[in-house]
Amino acid sequence: MTGIEHSPGDASRPANTVLVIGTGLIGTSIGLGLRRRGIEVWLDDHDPGTAATAQRLGAGVVGRPSTDPDVVFVAVPPSRTASVVSTALRMYVTSTLSDVASTKSHLQPDRDGLPSDLSRFVPGHPLAGREVSGPGAARDDLFADRVWALTPSDRTDPARVAQVAALVELLGGLPLMTTPQAHDRAVAMTSHTPQVVASLVAAGLAALTDADARLSGQGLRDMTRLAASDPDLWTEILTSNAEPVAEALDGLIDRLATVRDGLRSGSSGQVRASLAAGVVGVAKVPGKHGSRPVSYVIVPVVIADRPGELGRLFAAAASTEVNLEDVRIEHAQGRPTGLVELEVRPESAPALADGLRAQGFEVRG
Amino acid sequence: MTGIEHSPGDASRPANTVLVIGTGLIGTSIGLGLRRRGIEVWLDDHDPGTAATAQRLGAGVVGRPSTDPDVVFVAVPPSRTASVVSTALRMYVTSTLSDVASTKSHLQPDRDGLPSDLSRFVPGHPLAGREVSGPGAARDDLFADRVWALTPSDRTDPARVAQVAALVELLGGLPLMTTPQAHDRAVAMTSHTPQVVASLVAAGLAALTDADARLSGQGLRDMTRLAASDPDLWTEILTSNAEPVAEALDGLIDRLATVRDGLRSGSSGQVRASLAAGVVGVAKVPGKHGSRPVSYVIVPVVIADRPGELGRLFAAAASTEVNLEDVRIEHAQGRPTGLVELEVRPESAPALADGLRAQGFEVRG
Repeated sequence: MTGIEHSPGDASRPANTVLVIGTGLIGTSIGLGLRRRGIEVWLDDHDPGTAATAQRLGAGVVGRPSTDPDVVFVAVPPSRTASVVSTALRMYVTSTLSDVASTKSHLQPDRDGLPSDLSRFVPGHPLAGREVSGPGAARDDLFADRVWALTPSDRTDPARVAQVAALVELLGGLPLMTTPQAHDRAVAMTSHTPQVVASLVAAGLAALTDADARLSGQGLRDMTRLAASDPDLWTEILTSNAEPVAEALDGLIDRLATVRDGLRSGSSGQVRASLAAGVVGVAKVPGKHGSRPVSYVIVPVVIADRPGELGRLFAAAASTEVNLEDVRIEHAQGRPTGLVELEVRPESAPALADGLRAQGFEVRG
Repeated sequence: MTGIEHSPGDASRPANTVLVIGTGLIGTSIGLGLRRRGIEVWLDDHDPGTAATAQRLGAGVVGRPSTDPDVVFVAVPPSRTASVVSTALRMYVTSTLSDVASTKSHLQPDRDGLPSDLSRFVPGHPLAGREVSGPGAARDDLFADRVWALTPSDRTDPARVAQVAALVELLGGLPLMTTPQAHDRAVAMTSHTPQVVASLVAAGLAALTDADARLSGQGLRDMTRLAASDPDLWTEILTSNAEPVAEALDGLIDRLATVRDGLRSGSSGQVRASLAAGVVGVAKVPGKHGSRPVSYVIVPVVIADRPGELGRLFAAAASTEVNLEDVRIEHAQGRPTGLVELEVRPESAPALADGLRAQGFEVRG
């Protein structure tokens, strides 16, 4: 376990009592994390079975505190967030409130029935937990090292913002202050547009025969991985951020049309300029540990596809004491072998390649 | 080494003498693979230094055979393929010719100076070797388990097609017969459009502040990985397949506009239908070993980011005797830990998770 430990009654603790409304993956993980750090947590969910599961897992106690909790986290689906926040603000008149919805602009005063005074409400969005759902998938360290956006307005009480930020840090998260508009425009480009593009590139493949679809490699696989996501969930997310996503799609459509027109008119300069802009843009994608991506070198290794081969490879790699930055496995078609691409810092590549060869591995290049 | 071994003079061998024109990554790998199988290989390159390197690596002998070689492989850049094939057809009047250019429709009779009789020419495209280039990167097994498209016309001599296909198999490749038009339409969708999309999604990120760009996860990283590719090389590839790529972009632009319009008009049904089409399309993406992708289960494991941790993890995984289908490493931002996602068949997940936990690993979910 990491993070600052607080004993009960510690005055430096950002909250002594917290109510979590909505005990799915995110809410239950908040409860587990805060309980571990000695904070009293109450749990509420419209589904009593879900709340009971969260309590059984140790995320807190089902019910409502007799006095206003210090902080209320609303962790219900995006479409229900505004109404639950609104009700909670009226019910707990002294509490600080926060939410976890993946879009922020629609949570504005006088919109969606929200009261005009939102000074106690600190909107939030933890970037965590995508591949599983429900309280059973919760972890007390789900937010460790994850960016957690907070989007206060200039009317939000700064002390409440600091309080929520301190709880986020207590959970191991990385608070990132931004505006609702900047947040939604950013996730439209970094998350929502990629989802749409993955789906629509994949949709185009339906026109191919199975044989012709074999004319594809790892690039297509990476690009369309997201297309297998749940259409219902993503329809809710996209419609909750409709205009920023539509604007991001406007921009993408314009850029695609420029390349298409350049191809049809034989203007290779136009095509090249568009691709060069991508080289600039990709440098914005965070690499590991929040930094800009370093240019790693790929050390390609051919392995047999049988139990233990990867283990043998990684044990051998470990013995070289080179730190692996990333790993990709490109599966060969039709035969039981695979190409493993080990990404390492450029200066480490020779030592890794030599060490693996010395232990009998087939290193390419 | 795999594949059928032939002793010198073996009558069943598809060719006794082969000339490779262009000794970059692909040409040198062809030479290495054929030499290993006992075939006499001659090497030709407009750059004498490159050809000498290929010879030194064992890919064959620099020079021209005194009589027509059985087969000539033209492995020069796409923009020079037609003229070199044309010259070679006139110079070697009995030889079978093939090429390796990544687009096929432009290699038609009476186009680009090609002679009207192309019965001896079997156009080809091995889907291999992207991340490195030059003869030094060549491998005698570069084509092992790789799809190698052949696009004969109805006027191509079937015996010549069979001869080239046999050489492809001798090199370990998987011959895939298709038409030039189907090939180019397929790679426009499976390879060229993904490259354009990766670049243009990445280009949109330039509008974000560095802070807001932190609001991104693994999906964006996967989607924009290709955007770091060389703009010059890709401009040549895209312009060599201009109309099929332009048509694929037409289709993608139409589908993007449908989603955008659905978002602006509040038609969630329209958005959902587009995403659902992506779920259907992604099933066309070949999984490992050329099959349709199986739905694997992800077993997420948290590890410390230090030398040896991955090795320890994979050694532990190997001890469970569960076969790992794929591996992804999602790096946490800001702190030295990482989430490793092990993909396995659904029935294998519990054994893997239990085995890893028993060896002290933190398995989520």
